[in-house]
Amino acid sequence: MSLSQTATARVAAVIGLGSMGMGMALSLKKAGFDVLGADVSADAVSRFVAAGGRGIANLAEEIGEADTVISVVVNATQTETVLFGPEGIADSLRPGSVFVSSATMDPAIARKLAARLEEKGVHYLDAPISGGAARAASGELTVMASGTPAAFAAARPALDAMAAKVYELGDSAGFGAAFKMINQLLAGVHIAAACEAITFAAKQGLDLAKVYEVITASAGNSWMFENRIPHVLSGDYTPLSAIEIFVKDLGIIQDMARSERYPVPLSAAALQMYLAASGAGMGRDDDSSLARLYAQLSGATLPEKAN
Amino acid sequence: MSLSQTATARVAAVIGLGSMGMGMALSLKKAGFDVLGADVSADAVSRFVAAGGRGIANLAEEIGEADTVISVVVNATQTETVLFGPEGIADSLRPGSVFVSSATMDPAIARKLAARLEEKGVHYLDAPISGGAARAASGELTVMASGTPAAFAAARPALDAMAAKVYELGDSAGFGAAFKMINQLLAGVHIAAACEAITFAAKQGLDLAKVYEVITASAGNSWMFENRIPHVLSGDYTPLSAIEIFVKDLGIIQDMARSERYPVPLSAAALQMYLAASGAGMGRDDDSSLARLYAQLSGATLPEKAN
Repeated sequence: MSLSQTATARVAAVIGLGSMGMGMALSLKKAGFDVLGADVSADAVSRFVAAGGRGIANLAEEIGEADTVISVVVNATQTETVLFGPEGIADSLRPGSVFVSSATMDPAIARKLAARLEEKGVHYLDAPISGGAARAASGELTVMASGTPAAFAAARPALDAMAAKVYELGDSAGFGAAFKMINQLLAGVHIAAACEAITFAAKQGLDLAKVYEVITASAGNSWMFENRIPHVLSGDYTPLSAIEIFVKDLGIIQDMARSERYPVPLSAAALQMYLAASGAGMGRDDDSSLARLYAQLSGATLPEKAN
Repeated sequence: MSLSQTATARVAAVIGLGSMGMGMALSLKKAGFDVLGADVSADAVSRFVAAGGRGIANLAEEIGEADTVISVVVNATQTETVLFGPEGIADSLRPGSVFVSSATMDPAIARKLAARLEEKGVHYLDAPISGGAARAASGELTVMASGTPAAFAAARPALDAMAAKVYELGDSAGFGAAFKMINQLLAGVHIAAACEAITFAAKQGLDLAKVYEVITASAGNSWMFENRIPHVLSGDYTPLSAIEIFVKDLGIIQDMARSERYPVPLSAAALQMYLAASGAGMGRDDDSSLARLYAQLSGATLPEKAN
């Protein structure tokens, strides 16, 4: 990067340097941003600094440098802590800057957080992400975003650096979160259905590779069946996305549905299976571990990992 | 067709001239078979005769002409009646001919029917179909088949005439049925999940066309979401596939699962919704009518059909 570019570089901050946040921070750097990174883990910050980023020592003192602050934490509670907790940054954000919130959460909470920040003259973009760690690293995420035109305008350069596709879903916070929750409802149910089906096939002694071939070419296919069942076929439950993610996300669906007086029997049945998998000790394993749960509950035999 | 071709034409019989059976019978005719057609509805037989087929007046007397008998009835009970009922054809089938059974059924029943026919020297091909009426008419069905090599050999010319893809899933009856049931488990759950999700989106006031656009490009997608939700968006519940089909097929899943001591919480939740839709008077409507059921249960508003 030339000196003149450095002098005019936009400053972005990424809060939460997990597998998604780290990739997003590095994508921003690659696009020419001056990037600050913060995480509760000093290790994660060290790795980011080693990759050429700037670590933040004191969030409240330094966050005011950033034009764009991207929060890549796990849930609504952490987002609220980042903004309004004892060491929250809400009062340190520069007026006119934009806070981009990517955690999956109840749309009602996204609306409340946005209102509280907007009172302080800070824009809020409700911007849940999808695509996984590989796409975060390559700057090709999908973002389901909603917010005021001013929030979109302020966030645009960072969005362009991080995402291959930005859906603009409404002119206020909440719509992004709501679309993401609809996706998570389907994704969570489809993983559970895929595991119910493949293990039922195993219980009947069917050739599981053949089942995968036939189903992925048939009307019973889903994005999740196609993506997750290979983990079951290879017996490899290394977490790419953990059981606990859907304990959380289908939990949000239950809360939303209960509050809106909307029955969700499929999501409710799926949640019970994620809870059982977590309770049985598989919470941090890959979400395809639901297949192992079905096998435990039925005596079915699934493929084991080759050594 | 020239006289010499007629003289050597293979004879096939199709029992059950509904939307699938009629298409299959005409595909056989197009491929040069001499085709006999039977149905409990005299109307259906008349339409087949008008299209150039031969109606069967007396099944027991005439079925012995056929090299290949294809049963396209609704379920196991009807299949059993066709073969072994008071006017059943089992004793009239020519030894060495093949009975191709396409109804979706419990694999255990397929195995029993096959054993009873094989005792009489008749081959049995367990051959559930998928693809819908349009593909039946164009000879491009998918067939999930299992049976002895002799059964496959005898059925091959007819399969080639009716199907674009024939999966060979095992060397005895039951495997075809089992694969089809795994597909139906997933299909039935995915339709219910799609309707739970789209109506939840409606309840929250989201733009449903936008939801369709976002989900079909995301990890929450399924073949059924993509195929069925347009019916909901246009408010058109004209039956392409009726609620009762999944009352039947998820019912078979329940029976199989109970007998095998295998828990199916997702399929069970979905079945309850199909039962409720049927109980509420929508049994003969399109299976996407589950969305209307969710709307009734929650006060959500779905699109209405344009006039």
